[in-house]
Amino acid sequence: MTDWLGLAADDPFGISTLPYGVVLIDGQPQPAVRIGGSALLLRPAVQALLPEHADLFAGPNLDAFLAAGPDSWLDVRTAVTTWLIDETYRGQLEPLLRPLAGLPTVLPFSVADYVDFYASENHARNVGRIFRPDAESLLPNWKHLPVGYHGRAGTVVVSGTEVRRPLGQRQAGDGVEFGPSQRLDIEAEVGFVVGPGSSQGQPVPIADFDRHVFGVVLLNDWSARDIQAWEYVPLGPFLGKSFATSISAWITPLAALQTARVPAVPRDPAPLPYLDDTGDSWNLDLSIEVRLNGELISRPPFATMYWTAAQMMAHMTVNGASLRPGDLYGSGTVSGPEPDQLGSLLELSWGGSRPFALADGSQRSYLSDGDEIVMTATAPGPDGARIGISEVRGRIVPALDGPA
Amino acid sequence: MTDWLGLAADDPFGISTLPYGVVLIDGQPQPAVRIGGSALLLRPAVQALLPEHADLFAGPNLDAFLAAGPDSWLDVRTAVTTWLIDETYRGQLEPLLRPLAGLPTVLPFSVADYVDFYASENHARNVGRIFRPDAESLLPNWKHLPVGYHGRAGTVVVSGTEVRRPLGQRQAGDGVEFGPSQRLDIEAEVGFVVGPGSSQGQPVPIADFDRHVFGVVLLNDWSARDIQAWEYVPLGPFLGKSFATSISAWITPLAALQTARVPAVPRDPAPLPYLDDTGDSWNLDLSIEVRLNGELISRPPFATMYWTAAQMMAHMTVNGASLRPGDLYGSGTVSGPEPDQLGSLLELSWGGSRPFALADGSQRSYLSDGDEIVMTATAPGPDGARIGISEVRGRIVPALDGPA
Repeated sequence: MTDWLGLAADDPFGISTLPYGVVLIDGQPQPAVRIGGSALLLRPAVQALLPEHADLFAGPNLDAFLAAGPDSWLDVRTAVTTWLIDETYRGQLEPLLRPLAGLPTVLPFSVADYVDFYASENHARNVGRIFRPDAESLLPNWKHLPVGYHGRAGTVVVSGTEVRRPLGQRQAGDGVEFGPSQRLDIEAEVGFVVGPGSSQGQPVPIADFDRHVFGVVLLNDWSARDIQAWEYVPLGPFLGKSFATSISAWITPLAALQTARVPAVPRDPAPLPYLDDTGDSWNLDLSIEVRLNGELISRPPFATMYWTAAQMMAHMTVNGASLRPGDLYGSGTVSGPEPDQLGSLLELSWGGSRPFALADGSQRSYLSDGDEIVMTATAPGPDGARIGISEVRGRIVPALDGPA
Repeated sequence: MTDWLGLAADDPFGISTLPYGVVLIDGQPQPAVRIGGSALLLRPAVQALLPEHADLFAGPNLDAFLAAGPDSWLDVRTAVTTWLIDETYRGQLEPLLRPLAGLPTVLPFSVADYVDFYASENHARNVGRIFRPDAESLLPNWKHLPVGYHGRAGTVVVSGTEVRRPLGQRQAGDGVEFGPSQRLDIEAEVGFVVGPGSSQGQPVPIADFDRHVFGVVLLNDWSARDIQAWEYVPLGPFLGKSFATSISAWITPLAALQTARVPAVPRDPAPLPYLDDTGDSWNLDLSIEVRLNGELISRPPFATMYWTAAQMMAHMTVNGASLRPGDLYGSGTVSGPEPDQLGSLLELSWGGSRPFALADGSQRSYLSDGDEIVMTATAPGPDGARIGISEVRGRIVPALDGPA
């Protein structure tokens, strides 16, 4: 397929990708689809060319489109693809393209509930080895269920938002001290964005994944390890995570990732029936890259995750918890088996015991003020193309003074 | 003050209480204020008599009113109080009163983020004694910070909603089994409803409590102890709690609880400065009653909580996490020092080891299908009156069959 924009065949945001986001035009949010280095404004395009779906893009974000479900998603994707290939539409659509450079983006949907999982076996084992070196690295429940917890939906921010170093308590000898986090970390994750909801009291089976989950974002689950270590027993992470979670500005639809499906890793022991995906056991072959101040520091491979997105969804709802449009769930830190595939600085510096050097000669265990983290990813597309997953970017700004 | 409805002086929903909720009139949600056994429809009343605030009640819930902040809250409360005392308004308002009996209520606001704390020392010590009988009953962090975690906002339900017994995994010997929870429990809590939000990156100090928190509800944090016990290490409670959380249909404004403020319990060690409330250290003297199938089983006293609502708010935001209108945070289980003041069946049955008898001769450790839990509370009002906190009610319906 060739688009009339003349994009290079290896452009990761070519005609096979087409992620959705929200851009600001004269200060007003407008839904858009990304093609190459441009945003196509969806409201006027759909109004003119697919008017039966005009209401899906009438609002300030993608909420209505997400809630509309798979048939509508397919209608719109098919239409947009046609418009960008067929020269007939060029005259009508070219005026609706905006260069991405300098174009502000905002959070593309209203985050309902945000859940974060812990689904990488490599990551879970590394954390176990770092914090409990003399014990079994995996906890007893880990291979029976995708461990997860709820995070703060209200502090999910769009890529590019600055992240202020949090203040908090940490253990100091027998007492506590208070101040800016001294162990500010990243977590390279993939986030899944839910469309149509489900009924409270009714589990959603693995087979219904495609009816509920619209697409993926990259997710940086900023983590203050010192705050987290002090607070998290017995109710889990709270302030060590809740100050900010960054996601891509553009949501890549699962429809763009059909060619990126690979067999899921084998599981032992066999999971319980509600988590058994035999016959439809797939993961996404997303190759993530993590850059610190422009320098590649890790390449976490998403295909190595033990639990899949469909299993996470089935587990999250097996107790009758409902899904809502705009629910977001993260995979947990993606870490591969190799030393250059680790998705957190905690692992890259082995708990701070092995600081690593950057090209400028500086060393890092955790983040310094001013550091910028950019995560990107690609996946196999059709005909050798690559599908780009939009970046998630964030820079650390210094903590506030006080409160003391 | 005497209202023209002629309510008894000891009516807990008299002129000094006036909580806000949302009722269904011909299937349409309408904001209302409760007076005695009636709901006053606010939309027409405010439109006619306080038109400058008509937009606060134009929507299907209290969201706009909550977000409007303390000046608007005071304006409306002052006006409603006047209307109900001054006979002049009787003719205009009587047609806007609806008897509560049989009147459906719905969730009165859109829950943004839901956080649950663990702020009762008696409860935390009891849990410690039950699960770790040979260790120090309080964990090291407990007296330094209000321990808390995020729950699922999307499954907060209004009083009266049936609660389906959840399915889930539990430990069984060296393995796991799956099925309906066998240890379904309650947690008697007080919930705080947030109005105006705050800026991300900016802690909210204790002194700003009244600017952000509108009022209180009773909250039943239904808990599946067997699911929770298996899943919660290391990231905290997830499916053991996320299937349902019930709250009162009517939010009691803090303005009605000025006479219920009592000194907070002394704290040792002294908390860090951002949690230090010296000079403004108060708690709410709410006397809670918990009934199982109509039988009083506990009287948890809220004034015994170690951490106050203002401290919880300050802690929740000290890392820069923002507040949003509609945020809800629970106190955690309220348990007093006496055996008849415990806020969970876990404590009342001491981990299931001491089942207790009901009047009908049956025994309970945890909830049976069909059990109904009702929590009510009152607080000291002006001139010897009592302020009622609206009940939270829920009945357990049997688990679904499967998934296996």
